[in-house]
Amino acid sequence: MPHLHIEYSANLEAITDVGALCQALHGRMVDSRVFPTAGIRVRAFKANHAIVADGLLENAFVAMTLSVGAGRTVETLRAEGDALFAVAQNHLAGPLSKPHFALSLEIRVSDPELSWKDTPIHARLSKGK
Amino acid sequence: MPHLHIEYSANLEAITDVGALCQALHGRMVDSRVFPTAGIRVRAFKANHAIVADGLLENAFVAMTLSVGAGRTVETLRAEGDALFAVAQNHLAGPLSKPHFALSLEIRVSDPELSWKDTPIHARLSKGK
Amino acid sequence: MPHLHIEYSANLEAITDVGALCQALHGRMVDSRVFPTAGIRVRAFKANHAIVADGLLENAFVAMTLSVGAGRTVETLRAEGDALFAVAQNHLAGPLSKPHFALSLEIRVSDPELSWKDTPIHARLSKGK
Repeated sequence: MPHLHIEYSANLEAITDVGALCQALHGRMVDSRVFPTAGIRVRAFKANHAIVADGLLENAFVAMTLSVGAGRTVETLRAEGDALFAVAQNHLAGPLSKPHFALSLEIRVSDPELSWKDTPIHARLSKGK
Repeated sequence: MPHLHIEYSANLEAITDVGALCQALHGRMVDSRVFPTAGIRVRAFKANHAIVADGLLENAFVAMTLSVGAGRTVETLRAEGDALFAVAQNHLAGPLSKPHFALSLEIRVSDPELSWKDTPIHARLSKGK
Repeated sequence: MPHLHIEYSANLEAITDVGALCQALHGRMVDSRVFPTAGIRVRAFKANHAIVADGLLENAFVAMTLSVGAGRTVETLRAEGDALFAVAQNHLAGPLSKPHFALSLEIRVSDPELSWKDTPIHARLSKGK
């Protein structure tokens, strides 16, 4: 953790650089003082089919879900969400300036009793956050 | 919100029109009096690998997750789930008539304190539900 | 239920057989005394974009989420998670031996009041667990 799962409509690729969006979000997560760098997994999935809002073909979306481990206050998570969402808004300022785009973020807290991990990357990273 | 996330096995494409399934589900969500049209995101993802039940190659699945905002009763959500599931069952009557198919729906309620959205589509839609 | 959703980075395909991983995990789920075989859906999705930990191109990940119905104790779910995670660790021993891989599993319990299913496969399977 933190895991950032991103879903997007295929038409997004014509209006923004999805890889660069992932890089920007990843950069913000690395800069965070809250989350361990070794736990970061940013991944984006292009939908095979998507229908957004009133169904116009030019409607596009990005839906982000950040899953984090337990133990942080809602205030801390809100601040992290604010920062991450702002990065997405900045990167997607073009699409957001038109009435055919929808951006969202949700944070989920996972149950530590029902989570497992094996992360050899962790030992490599001196950052040790 | 509402977000309808659909996962399906690749072999489904040979037995039904997945795009038409999405259209039918989207139509039901637009007709709903409960959810705002501007918040609808229907998206479907084809699995790169899938193994269903006893693992027969002809086994196929559709798994739907509807994520909604907080503030509605379980009764309201159950009624919406019933209606949406019925649309899926109707569209998938063929696969459901054979012992190699599995359909499911789950509704999740998101935490309003940990949700962000920026939906310029909303202003465009006069429906304003 | 149980549904095993797997996400992975595209570079994983060069270092392991993802289909065989799914087969191994499916085998463990069939062998479980806890979950009905008819309810198993293992599916894996390759990310279109992925950035892991410190962002090295050779970093790879597998993130598994097991969704199960309600009614089992945390102890039972932990034992099932332990067994499933061990299968994944065994299959991925190679990647896990290098400091560029991250494996995770989370179990989620779904709300029975907000779940629907139609599984004609079930009647076919005599196992009836």
